[in-house]
Parts: sequence; C-alpha cells; structure tokens
Amino acid sequence: MRPLRTAALIAVGSELLRPGRSDANGDWLTERLGRLGIEVVARTIVGDDAARTATVIVAALRAGDLVILTGGLGPTEDDRTREALARALGRPLERDAEREERLRAMFESRGRTFRPMQARQTDKPRGAEWVDNPLGTAPGVLCRRAGRLVIALPGVPAEMRRMFEDSVAPLASARAMGALARRALKIGGRLEASVDEQLRDLYGTRGVDVTILAGHEGIELQLAAHGADAEHARLALDALEREIADRLGDDLYGKDDETLPVAVGRALTAAGLSVATAESCTAGLLAAALTEVPGSSAWFRGGVVPYADDLKPVLADVPVEVVARSGAVSEDVARALAEGVRRRTGASLGVGITGIAGPGGGSADKPVGLVHVAIAGPARTDHWRLLHVGDRALIRRRSVSFALDRLRRRASEREAG
Amino acid sequence: MRPLRTAALIAVGSELLRPGRSDANGDWLTERLGRLGIEVVARTIVGDDAARTATVIVAALRAGDLVILTGGLGPTEDDRTREALARALGRPLERDAEREERLRAMFESRGRTFRPMQARQTDKPRGAEWVDNPLGTAPGVLCRRAGRLVIALPGVPAEMRRMFEDSVAPLASARAMGALARRALKIGGRLEASVDEQLRDLYGTRGVDVTILAGHEGIELQLAAHGADAEHARLALDALEREIADRLGDDLYGKDDETLPVAVGRALTAAGLSVATAESCTAGLLAAALTEVPGSSAWFRGGVVPYADDLKPVLADVPVEVVARSGAVSEDVARALAEGVRRRTGASLGVGITGIAGPGGGSADKPVGLVHVAIAGPARTDHWRLLHVGDRALIRRRSVSFALDRLRRRASEREAG
Repeated sequence: MRPLRTAALIAVGSELLRPGRSDANGDWLTERLGRLGIEVVARTIVGDDAARTATVIVAALRAGDLVILTGGLGPTEDDRTREALARALGRPLERDAEREERLRAMFESRGRTFRPMQARQTDKPRGAEWVDNPLGTAPGVLCRRAGRLVIALPGVPAEMRRMFEDSVAPLASARAMGALARRALKIGGRLEASVDEQLRDLYGTRGVDVTILAGHEGIELQLAAHGADAEHARLALDALEREIADRLGDDLYGKDDETLPVAVGRALTAAGLSVATAESCTAGLLAAALTEVPGSSAWFRGGVVPYADDLKPVLADVPVEVVARSGAVSEDVARALAEGVRRRTGASLGVGITGIAGPGGGSADKPVGLVHVAIAGPARTDHWRLLHVGDRALIRRRSVSFALDRLRRRASEREAG
Repeated sequence: MRPLRTAALIAVGSELLRPGRSDANGDWLTERLGRLGIEVVARTIVGDDAARTATVIVAALRAGDLVILTGGLGPTEDDRTREALARALGRPLERDAEREERLRAMFESRGRTFRPMQARQTDKPRGAEWVDNPLGTAPGVLCRRAGRLVIALPGVPAEMRRMFEDSVAPLASARAMGALARRALKIGGRLEASVDEQLRDLYGTRGVDVTILAGHEGIELQLAAHGADAEHARLALDALEREIADRLGDDLYGKDDETLPVAVGRALTAAGLSVATAESCTAGLLAAALTEVPGSSAWFRGGVVPYADDLKPVLADVPVEVVARSGAVSEDVARALAEGVRRRTGASLGVGITGIAGPGGGSADKPVGLVHVAIAGPARTDHWRLLHVGDRALIRRRSVSFALDRLRRRASEREAG
C-alpha cells in the first residue's frame, strides 16, 4: 500500500472566508497529522459551491497522499461537500437506503420530525465508505483513489476531532512513515542570500528539510525531519543543528521561541554587564524591545529619547558644537549619544541611534533610511552607518534589530569594553 | 473586458503551514478586496514546491476571476512562485536583462554584494508584466489569461500592502461590480459593552451593517454598506456616521487608518502644544507610539526611560525621598515623573508612567498589573491608577493606549494646563 507522507486540507464554508475568521479545524489537523509524521503541504478554504470545491479536491489529490475535507456535510442546501466529492471523483452520488432508515429511526426515537432534506446526509459517491459520527447526525465519507485517501468530516470541531481520533488516526498512522520533528534556528546580522550560499549544501542532508526565511529580527532556518519515531527525528535535527552551528558561529543566536532581546539579555547576564540606550529616530523602540524580556531590570538600566535636536545635549550630554558641526544625524552624534547615556546612567554599555526614518527630512547627502548606530563601552566605541530600504516603520524596526544584534555580539566578546 | 467579481488567494510558503502560523496577508486581502466589491471565494496555503503551487494556481484560475499569490518571490532556491506561475500558464520563464541591471546597480550603490541568485528576482513568465515594489527588491508579476488576472506579490506584509494599493487596487476597482463601502470608527477610553448599549438601536439602520470590536487601542465600530455604486454606499455610511458621532462626542477619535497617536498629534497641533514622556514600566513604548506618526517632531520633544529606580532622580528629577517614601510604583512617583520630564524638556505637557508589568515583582499591596499614569501641564497634574489584567505585553500596551487617550483629551481641553 502507498505510504501516507503528505496531506492536503480543505475547509468548506463561505463563513470561513469572511474577514477575521480562521480555519481552526485545519490548525488542529495540521498539528495532529504532524505528530503522526504526515506533513500538511497545502490548505484551502473554499465557499459553499460544489463546482469550486470539486476543483479544489482535484488539485488537493495531486498535492497530497491524504486529503481531508471539513464542513459542508449538513442537511441543508448549502452543504455541498458530498456533491463536490462525487464530481471530483467522477462517480455518481447514491443514497444509502439502510443508513436513511437508521437516521429516520434515530430522529423518531428522539421525538424529532425527520425532514426529507435530512436524507441528503445519507448520500455518498459510489464505492465510498462511511465514517461513523458518534457525536452527531452527519456521517463522514471516505473514498480511495489510486492509493490515496479522501476523507470528508463534519465542520463541528468536537465531531470532527472525535471522528479523526476514532477512524482516521488509526488508518493514517498505520500507513504513515514515523514522526515529524521541527526546529527553528535564528541568525542575526546576516543577509538571507549569504546564509543561503553558506549552508545550501546541507539542505536535505541527514533527512532534514531546510527552509530559509527573512524576518525583521534576522534570518530563520526552519528544519523539519521525518523519523521512524520522535526520538529518531530529534536526533536527525540535533546532528544537522551541530553542523550548522559550527559554520555559523556567533551568527546563530537562538532557537524556536528565543527572540533577539532574550539573546541580548543572556549575553549581558553571562558577562555581568548592563546597558542603557539613547535613541533619536527609533524613539524608545530599542528600550521597549529590551524590556519585553521578563527580568530585564537585572541588566537594563534605562534610556533617553532626545528627539528634538536641542534635547541631545540636555538628555544625553551630546556637546552642542558636535550637533552644530556634524548635524543631528551623523557618526559623531551617534557616538556622543552612546557615550553620554553610558556615563549618565552608569551602565557598562551605551547604545546610540540617530537617523532619518522619513518620509520627510531626507536630502541627497543624508537620505531617508540613513541611520547611525554606536555602542560605547569603557575602552572603545564602535560605530556603524546603515542605509535601510523601506517605510518609516520598517526603517525603525530594522535599526532596532541591527542594534540588538550588535549589542549581543559586543556583550559576548571576551573584552566587551 | 470581463468584470472581476471573485478572487482566489494563494499564500506560498512552507512556514505558513506550520502549526500556529496563519496567513495574515490573506486576511488583509480578503478585507481589502471586499471593500472593492470583490468576493474572495477560495484561499489556499501551499508550501515552497513549484509543482504543487502550479496545481493550486490552475485550480484558483477556475475558481476566481482574479488570483493573487503572496510569497515565494525572494532570491533563494526555495522561492518558487515565478517558476510555478510559468508552469501553470504553460509559458517559459525569461530573465529581464534591463531589470537585472537595475537591481545590480541598486545593490552596488548601497555597497552590497550582488550575488548571482539575486538575478532570479528578474525572471518572469513570457508576456507577463512587472508590478513595481517601492519598498523592497522583489518586484511582483502580473499575467493575463482569458480575461482573468493572476498577480504574484511578495510575502513581506508592508511591501505586499503597498504594492496592492499602488498597482492592484486601481486595476481591480476599475473592473469590479457595484460597490461595498466600509468604514471603521474609532473610540477611545470606553468599554465595549457600554458602547454597544449606547448604539445598539442604530445597528442595521440605513442599510449599514455594524460590527463592534475591542482592540488594544480601544473600540472599533466597523460599518459596511452595499450600494449600486461607491457614491451610494458612501452616502449611507456618512448618514450613519453622523448619528453615531452625535451620540459619542469626544469618545470618537478617528476613522479608518487614523490611529490613536495620529489623533494625539492632531489635538496637540491644533492647541499649539508639545509633549514629553517619562516611562518606567512601558520603557519607551509610549514615545515609540507617538513617533510612529510622520512629522511628530513638530509636537513630540523627547522622553526618558528611568527603568532602574536610582535613575528616576537622575533622568527625571524625581526627588530621592519620594521614591524612598512612596515606592517606585506610586501616584507620587508618576506625578513627579510627569512634572520632571516636562520641566527638563521644556514641553507643554509631560506624561509619567510607572507600574508593575510582571510576571515578577508584584505584592499583595502592589499587584502585577498596577500602573500609575500622570499628565502634567503648566497649572495642574492629573493622575490615574489602573489595574490591568493580562500578561506583560498586554499590560504595557494597555497602559500606553490609556495614556494616549488621556493625552488626546487633555490636549483638546480649552485650558490644557
């Protein structure tokens, strides 16, 4: 029998396409199938339309070994999943007389009127099997096609989950290929293309799939390993992670839910250092990011936001003549901000940021996106000149991520000063 | 030309299929297309696989008049959207030599290495058109097929949204049918239940649907009206908006994209006032929120973040004995922070915030969630004691929203001092 490695999910229901709604059944199935070692490779939400749903089922059968539909199995006119299944498979829809009798008897035993439309729930494509629904009236439907499985379950979460556990999981796990384990590795201060070039030959080795993603906090490598069981999958991830860590060295700052501020806090704590910030264009975003971390008061002293130019001397001891000579957005001012706030707060390290976030305020000489970052310690001050692409929010966020990454590296040096 | 009534959305990216992830771009596009009168009839998430993505594109072209893909346009090997498009349309992928030169020049002008793989971003299916990306390096691609449109946009939300507004919306609205008009009305400093009670009898009147939502910045009323054309729909919204505005008075602070910081800036500008901030538990979040607004330097002077208790006297002139007597989280310290930063920066108004964001640091007397906010002007200082529910991030965000709303109201008073 063909093994089940991949699944495609289809949620049927026009209400799920409204703004603000989400496909919670699909979220649950993705998680649950992953634990069975079956990877969800596509998810679709489609409205209550038989022709469109049939089209989606045909595409899903090309994408995955297992197709699971949720929703559209009720008794009313807008429940079209049975009809869509029959169309997609090119088989007629047939009523199951025995099931119809059972359903009628069930209704009558509860004193409810059995309406003709209820009988629609006992239609299925020729050759399909029923999937029992212990919690409701709409049974599920299972069809086999060239070693692949298509299963339709109700959209009511409790019914769907119970039917999955009772009927689908045993079938799927018998034909699955072990377990799937995932891990995210986080990389700071590098461009996506350069990381990709450095690591590309490792992708797919040791049976681990690697996806590379660029976000505001840096680059993320997503590792996924299939194994005979969870332990084997984890060992494959561990082995590849070691190889990647060897190559990346300091560029790797954390994994899974570890954020860049968490990595900064860890580095400062390990080195016994504290930090303070002086921010102009980012105006408190760096201080706010650092203090997202619970317990950050152990290593974050405080900061100043000298947004108006005349406050740079007042709040951060930037000499008036430096602002006048070099301009507020300059290397000299970034250095003076870092050194000034360090002295004033008594922190081990001071960070200074000044730049032009736009949309106004740029010139040929100093364009929008120009940002100067400096980090001052007891013995030296480092400086970087950045030229960011993006709008105001992106320029500010990218400046903060850059400063966090440099701060993490500085704190990890043997002599941070 | 064929009108655009329906759309199918495809989000490309294996990371979006991981448990816990969602397709935020699709949510935004569904909302935005709805306002143009275009109904989203199917949404698919597919991993970074060209063959599967091509299959999904073919199905989407049967389902919708307009197909929008997001993601998979980056420079690396796992960015396969261009290739999938070419496969789905049965056209060869061709490199645009002129675009390649432009991209190379852009990289070189910024002092970055242009790697060969970057050039992949200048491939498109034969006959396709480019969609410019003003915020990033990956351009979008537009293909026409039997009166239907397929458009591929980057997955970075800011880039995607900007490209949609600049290039896709004008095209789509020119070919849409009838019109759906939406408007969001924003309300500050009120609870959802009380707004709902006050306005409930207006819901559904004048043919306008009303949905009420509670967010971090306050309450939002979402109004939606269908009309024969955009003008009719807009007039229905205008009429209901006037009735709502009459009832809410000052509580209504803006509409649509107007954020609370924008409303604060407008009020300060109208009154000719400036502001400065002294933040302890929110640690720069308020200053960062105020400076999200372009041009905020006209009314935001700057701020201090005296996070460590011994910096409250140093950075904001809070008397040492006040911290010692009342504790760092107290009404007295909030008032002293507001007054101190106001004096030190020369701003018209000063805002002070001190509190316990948790998870640690709470006591029976001063529990996690306790926050003191003060606003100082030339003649008086106002104070509020808040007790927030929520985790660290929520407590900080709600404190900032509260301070912004109070600042907006104070600036709107005849005598703000």
